[in-house]
Amino acid sequence: MRQPTVIESKRCFGGTQTVYEHHSRVTSTPMRFSIFLPPQAEAGPVPSVTFLSGLTCNEQNFTTKAGAQRYAAELGLIVVAPDTSPRGLSLPGEHDGYDFGSGAGFYLNATVAPYAAHYRMYDYIQDELWQLVHQHFPADPKAAGIMGHSMGGHGALVLGLRERQQYRSISALAPIANPCDCPWGHKAFTGYLGENRELWKEYDASLLLRQPYDGPEILIDQGEADPFLVEQLKPERLVEAASVSGAALRLRMQPGYDHSYYFIATFIGDHLRHHAHILKA
Amino acid sequence: MRQPTVIESKRCFGGTQTVYEHHSRVTSTPMRFSIFLPPQAEAGPVPSVTFLSGLTCNEQNFTTKAGAQRYAAELGLIVVAPDTSPRGLSLPGEHDGYDFGSGAGFYLNATVAPYAAHYRMYDYIQDELWQLVHQHFPADPKAAGIMGHSMGGHGALVLGLRERQQYRSISALAPIANPCDCPWGHKAFTGYLGENRELWKEYDASLLLRQPYDGPEILIDQGEADPFLVEQLKPERLVEAASVSGAALRLRMQPGYDHSYYFIATFIGDHLRHHAHILKA
Repeated sequence: MRQPTVIESKRCFGGTQTVYEHHSRVTSTPMRFSIFLPPQAEAGPVPSVTFLSGLTCNEQNFTTKAGAQRYAAELGLIVVAPDTSPRGLSLPGEHDGYDFGSGAGFYLNATVAPYAAHYRMYDYIQDELWQLVHQHFPADPKAAGIMGHSMGGHGALVLGLRERQQYRSISALAPIANPCDCPWGHKAFTGYLGENRELWKEYDASLLLRQPYDGPEILIDQGEADPFLVEQLKPERLVEAASVSGAALRLRMQPGYDHSYYFIATFIGDHLRHHAHILKA
Repeated sequence: MRQPTVIESKRCFGGTQTVYEHHSRVTSTPMRFSIFLPPQAEAGPVPSVTFLSGLTCNEQNFTTKAGAQRYAAELGLIVVAPDTSPRGLSLPGEHDGYDFGSGAGFYLNATVAPYAAHYRMYDYIQDELWQLVHQHFPADPKAAGIMGHSMGGHGALVLGLRERQQYRSISALAPIANPCDCPWGHKAFTGYLGENRELWKEYDASLLLRQPYDGPEILIDQGEADPFLVEQLKPERLVEAASVSGAALRLRMQPGYDHSYYFIATFIGDHLRHHAHILKA
């Protein structure tokens, strides 16, 4: 695998915050991701956490607004933040809405043409990005976690629950918890996966979590003033699923907080500590 | 003074991060500023720090990217971040360059028409914003500090040194230290103040600091990899001036850091602690 190209690299909290671009064999497009290397990574492999962003975001939003670097530098964590979809295409309908197509890949492998040829964000994260990170950076493959926000919270839960051998720790901020049963999920799954609802179930955390899960506690934070809480996010579905399977899941409802990066910034420290605690055990 | 209008308000680190807009009698335009109220402000007046931003910024850049809220919430500081110029005008040349006019008010009172009628950011910060903050928010007027970045570092040093009775603590990140003798300063001072160099001297921190200063230590951080260091910023001029006047000034050169918000985010905690230490004494 070729070394990805540096787009920008910045000193930050004693480590380095870099954005890379590479040609993806999975999406057949250029893809960008950011990676923070903490000072501890100079001495050898350290744990890593991949953060999956929400609708409309690219790799910059989390990187510039979440304030994660301070905690990652303290905890000795690599933090990886990929883009949310392929870019540079002009597929029919791809740029018509904020909640489908560009900026809205939903971390799945599309099966409906023409999206199936490029919108393969599940494989991109799980396979190609994983290999890039572990081949070119000092990330310990035995100590990887995954987290995300909103659409990215959905992605983190789905990838974390399905790829247990890969991701040892899981958390989410305001995830789309039950995409089979909300407008965002319905639109995306119909557009990317078609009408075959059996396929949808592979990408729904509230259904996946009904299967046996004996991993470490999954941490979820949700703002009570989030305007998407009732119609789109539905975190109570995760609690219900965990009660069926006996999975360890902690949902924290946060009074007054909305869906913004101010919410993410407030709780990102707790989440990175959650991952570090599990990954360093 | 009328209550400014809320543009957005977000829960953040247990406090509130709000953007306000108001009609400014000083600039005769609408003006925006952001203000973070820490949890401690619910119990009564707390110290405040005003952060002045650099070229091209408005009130959002610092507010979304610096990560100041975490420290302000810990320290019990109000943090105010105004815009960098009047907005909504169409003066000749106002929008032609990133380093003059909109987004580049340079925290001075222009004397050259037509800028003199609106570009009065010195009075805006020192008088109108000060009154707004102390009239409508629980900011202790006896415990106010000022800081800034780049053009805003220049503004913070100039306002802090000239308004000693108002601002008790001063710091700057990568300030334009000697604007009379660098291209950014030369262009701005010529455009706003004309050719009268006596007037320029009132807005040059390296000249002001040659006057007696017996206040608390001024903290300056400067990245060694800052591309503007040699030609535009010249922090050594502050050290020279302080050695003449005996002023307490600490310049910290930071290896590897550039001019970006990653640099600001890395050191904002040190700066807010610097202010809190002085303002709470």
